[in-house]
Amino acid sequence: MTRVSSMAPGTFWCIQNAAILKHILDIAQKGKFTGLVLHAGLAEKYAGEIADSGVPLILKLNGKSELFTEEDPFSPQLYSVEDAITLGAIAVGYTVYSGSQYENEMLREFSKIVREAHSKGMMAIGWMYPRGKAIFDRKSSSKTLKMALDEQEQTNQAIDETPSIVAYAARIGLELGADMVKVKYTGSPDSFRWVVKSAHPTRVVMSGGPKTDTDEEFLSRVKDVIDAGAAGIAVGRNVWQRSDPLSISEKLHQLIYGD
Amino acid sequence: MTRVSSMAPGTFWCIQNAAILKHILDIAQKGKFTGLVLHAGLAEKYAGEIADSGVPLILKLNGKSELFTEEDPFSPQLYSVEDAITLGAIAVGYTVYSGSQYENEMLREFSKIVREAHSKGMMAIGWMYPRGKAIFDRKSSSKTLKMALDEQEQTNQAIDETPSIVAYAARIGLELGADMVKVKYTGSPDSFRWVVKSAHPTRVVMSGGPKTDTDEEFLSRVKDVIDAGAAGIAVGRNVWQRSDPLSISEKLHQLIYGD
Amino acid sequence: MTRVSSMAPGTFWCIQNAAILKHILDIAQKGKFTGLVLHAGLAEKYAGEIADSGVPLILKLNGKSELFTEEDPFSPQLYSVEDAITLGAIAVGYTVYSGSQYENEMLREFSKIVREAHSKGMMAIGWMYPRGKAIFDRKSSSKTLKMALDEQEQTNQAIDETPSIVAYAARIGLELGADMVKVKYTGSPDSFRWVVKSAHPTRVVMSGGPKTDTDEEFLSRVKDVIDAGAAGIAVGRNVWQRSDPLSISEKLHQLIYGD
Amino acid sequence: MTRVSSMAPGTFWCIQNAAILKHILDIAQKGKFTGLVLHAGLAEKYAGEIADSGVPLILKLNGKSELFTEEDPFSPQLYSVEDAITLGAIAVGYTVYSGSQYENEMLREFSKIVREAHSKGMMAIGWMYPRGKAIFDRKSSSKTLKMALDEQEQTNQAIDETPSIVAYAARIGLELGADMVKVKYTGSPDSFRWVVKSAHPTRVVMSGGPKTDTDEEFLSRVKDVIDAGAAGIAVGRNVWQRSDPLSISEKLHQLIYGD
Amino acid sequence: MTRVSSMAPGTFWCIQNAAILKHILDIAQKGKFTGLVLHAGLAEKYAGEIADSGVPLILKLNGKSELFTEEDPFSPQLYSVEDAITLGAIAVGYTVYSGSQYENEMLREFSKIVREAHSKGMMAIGWMYPRGKAIFDRKSSSKTLKMALDEQEQTNQAIDETPSIVAYAARIGLELGADMVKVKYTGSPDSFRWVVKSAHPTRVVMSGGPKTDTDEEFLSRVKDVIDAGAAGIAVGRNVWQRSDPLSISEKLHQLIYGD
Repeated sequence: MTRVSSMAPGTFWCIQNAAILKHILDIAQKGKFTGLVLHAGLAEKYAGEIADSGVPLILKLNGKSELFTEEDPFSPQLYSVEDAITLGAIAVGYTVYSGSQYENEMLREFSKIVREAHSKGMMAIGWMYPRGKAIFDRKSSSKTLKMALDEQEQTNQAIDETPSIVAYAARIGLELGADMVKVKYTGSPDSFRWVVKSAHPTRVVMSGGPKTDTDEEFLSRVKDVIDAGAAGIAVGRNVWQRSDPLSISEKLHQLIYGD
Repeated sequence: MTRVSSMAPGTFWCIQNAAILKHILDIAQKGKFTGLVLHAGLAEKYAGEIADSGVPLILKLNGKSELFTEEDPFSPQLYSVEDAITLGAIAVGYTVYSGSQYENEMLREFSKIVREAHSKGMMAIGWMYPRGKAIFDRKSSSKTLKMALDEQEQTNQAIDETPSIVAYAARIGLELGADMVKVKYTGSPDSFRWVVKSAHPTRVVMSGGPKTDTDEEFLSRVKDVIDAGAAGIAVGRNVWQRSDPLSISEKLHQLIYGD
Repeated sequence: MTRVSSMAPGTFWCIQNAAILKHILDIAQKGKFTGLVLHAGLAEKYAGEIADSGVPLILKLNGKSELFTEEDPFSPQLYSVEDAITLGAIAVGYTVYSGSQYENEMLREFSKIVREAHSKGMMAIGWMYPRGKAIFDRKSSSKTLKMALDEQEQTNQAIDETPSIVAYAARIGLELGADMVKVKYTGSPDSFRWVVKSAHPTRVVMSGGPKTDTDEEFLSRVKDVIDAGAAGIAVGRNVWQRSDPLSISEKLHQLIYGD
Repeated sequence: MTRVSSMAPGTFWCIQNAAILKHILDIAQKGKFTGLVLHAGLAEKYAGEIADSGVPLILKLNGKSELFTEEDPFSPQLYSVEDAITLGAIAVGYTVYSGSQYENEMLREFSKIVREAHSKGMMAIGWMYPRGKAIFDRKSSSKTLKMALDEQEQTNQAIDETPSIVAYAARIGLELGADMVKVKYTGSPDSFRWVVKSAHPTRVVMSGGPKTDTDEEFLSRVKDVIDAGAAGIAVGRNVWQRSDPLSISEKLHQLIYGD
Repeated sequence: MTRVSSMAPGTFWCIQNAAILKHILDIAQKGKFTGLVLHAGLAEKYAGEIADSGVPLILKLNGKSELFTEEDPFSPQLYSVEDAITLGAIAVGYTVYSGSQYENEMLREFSKIVREAHSKGMMAIGWMYPRGKAIFDRKSSSKTLKMALDEQEQTNQAIDETPSIVAYAARIGLELGADMVKVKYTGSPDSFRWVVKSAHPTRVVMSGGPKTDTDEEFLSRVKDVIDAGAAGIAVGRNVWQRSDPLSISEKLHQLIYGD
């Protein structure tokens, strides 16, 4: 896998029900997506269909319900690297909410996952999302946060989309040995270039894709991100819920792989 | 097991004492119930009688007393998948109180149980009941909860019986790999159809059965649930405490298996 | 072991010092007690004397000091089933304070102990004592507690000696697979018969024995308990601190074994 | 080892720096001390010198800094019984702060250590020091504490040096299987005799040695303690910081071993 | 390794991005640094370059983000001694924040790491930094803290740079068996000599290097530290962010190794 474009459930969502999975798998196959992110349940129940499609499976190892929403989030590890191998995955994913008071548990779990994955020839991908009262309520003497607040004053960005926060999150992924990190967009190609540089040689993919009014705007931003050195993007509903998901998939593929 | 009708103790109840167990086992056998849910104690002490009856045993792996009633409940794992095998069970059950501040422990335990059960050729059933301050006191920024509150306004349902909450709970079971989930009734066939769809291909059984005035009303609701795609129902006292439990059992069997 | 009469230290007590142990062992042997409950320390240091006496050893696996007295008690497991085997015990004991906010840890430990004990051919005995703010401060929406409070209004009993609470505690022992449970007296033969029925086929022994003015009163109550179906009683200081412990032991033996 | 006189660091102290260790080892050897208590660091770095001296090594398995001083103390296990064997120790030590809200963790760790030590032919020594808000702030319904408070009223002793508290602490050591317990002095030979009796057959050594004005007073108290049945004393700075530590060591030896 | 001069990331910093790593490695090689401290991510991704450079690798085993900044810090173990061996490290490092309410977890982890490292022929280095409310808010009855506060009154030093605190921190390293400790400078050669003596025979390196106006001042302080018996210093940005890092590296090498 050189560059990745994947569909990625963070917390559990009702909307991605299994009826839709075959539809998604179809788009992923025809749209030449290089990865599909699933929890163990769907990965197991549709193992045959996934194998037939040829779309590489990425097993998301931690997860939480979206019912319990403490300000300092924690997403526990639910499956092991061994489970991922059993299910035929080529990579494992894990969300780290750094800044949360539970970050120590997540840093611990993810660093262990990375070590084990590498010892077994698997890739490890980090969903790197700073969160928690430390960040949102500014309850922190963090220098990174101070820089982020300065940036926010100028750009009016959400604090967890400021270049300093996103670059720092990407950096943690590198320090722990992630092969790839998934982060939010920082609002400009230049700042995203800094993110990519901070994580290098860990590859960076942009999460979701910016909410834009038109397809053109969306694709132009993806272009910016790729030009900034990103390895790809991770998309979900904003691709497969469109009326013509294959058309946009093709354009994304062209932007990312340049062919 | 295609469709299931079982008797299921959630928390420990005095009323189901062992003297009654033989009576229940008798009904289950004659009423052709396809599963009997027990804790390890009774499963072990009546192993001979259960084996003789031919009624398949489902071992409930977690449990709690009903004395300690914190708003955010936790039901710890008490027995292992290995114990279930030793006791001759064909499936294991586990309650997940998503929305509770302890949901991370339960998600962890249940996901591990599902993995292990499947690796040993056993089925895993999830009792999926959202609970806790997040839900009952609305202390949550959850989108699912917001939808549930809207539904509640229109239907006056209990919040944990709204379609959004029940469908989401069923969905978590699917994501974790449950073979079957046990959920509350959502009040209407249409909304329960959505629940079944959200969990598909994980099978859905309705918990308990609605408190109705007459047998007819009860049976008509069971019919609605089955028509909505449910795999069956899980019943307890409202069957075996009746004067003629076999008669109602027979009618349930007909509704579920259509023969 | 069919019926048991044992001396049982719950928390650690100074009064039972080792000088007295030989005295107790002597009474147990001559009084034909069918079990002596000890912690690992005395069981190990007097292993020879215990073996010589022929009095069966029951190793109490959890314990706590009586210095730290939180309203919601927790008694941690200190020794293993393996330790009990090494020390020559025929059974293991464990206290479960259901209703305590730590009941989940104790339910977990005890259920695991029962599984392991049975797999190794040992008996497991539960000291079943509901406790904690949930019960004493009525901070609970428990139905069992509600029933207990009604009973208390009529009988003026301590809440943890009401029939509903004691029967429920015994029931938990059965659900977890205990071979025997030790519970408080409920004040009347009829209510104790309900306790015995709730736990059946797990055998029930009465803890301590009621504080009575005369020997006759004490023995008459023991008779009531045995008539109610109890397997025996567990006694301590109220036997071996008497001037003539052997005389009362003989009478107890007669009442319990009827010979 | 029949009777012991040891130098024992409880928490970590700067004053016992390694330059001084050789000095201490020299006193211990010449003064015929039968045990030297160390943490793993010094035991390892001076393994050669310790072996050459012939002074038996006792490895202290838990420890804490004296910077964090919560009212309810906890001293975590830092080394294993296996480590003690590797380092050539003949016994292991562990501090139990019963009465602390963390006593459950320490009771658990120590009881496990005792089991493992005995299975490997090693002695286990308990530093038995009741502590915590339960004792110092009287936040406890403990009967032992009530007795201790009565004693305190008469003798004006520190609460953790009252006979009831010290005897109870020694008793816990016996219950858990300790071969020897180290406790505070209770102020009088008679009360210490009770302590010794409460722990019997676990041997008792007096911690530290009372702060006295003269050598005579100190030695006379040690004599009292030995007469009361103590196995010895555990000394530290009050021996090796004297101008003539060997002289006092000789006198201590004579008092303890009577030769 | 006799004396060490290393570059050491404590918490994760964005500034040390991988582009810069090759630059640092170049300085370390040419400047004859005897150790480079890295987390597993960079150690793994640049394993080839590190091996080629001949600069010994020290794997830092714990870490935290600098976003969550509780007053009582905790830095969890992220990699194992086995991981360090796999990555080709010659030593492992670990930060202990003694004084923090989480010191028990860090003392536990570090002492275990030291034991395992030594059993596998590896060195263990402790970053010994007292922290937490106990120290900064004086919420402690610690004697060391009392001494430190007296020193602070005279010298106006930061409390965690006072001789008593630093010497005590170094001492903990010795007690746990560290081969080397990294501590802050105490402001004077005499006080640092005390630190070195307190840790002996564990070697001491000065963290960072004092912030000075001129190179001469910096080098003169390093000379003081070395004269006080320190084994070396651990430097970072204040070497490799200079215009001529090799020149200052050479002077450091001369001061430390005297050649």
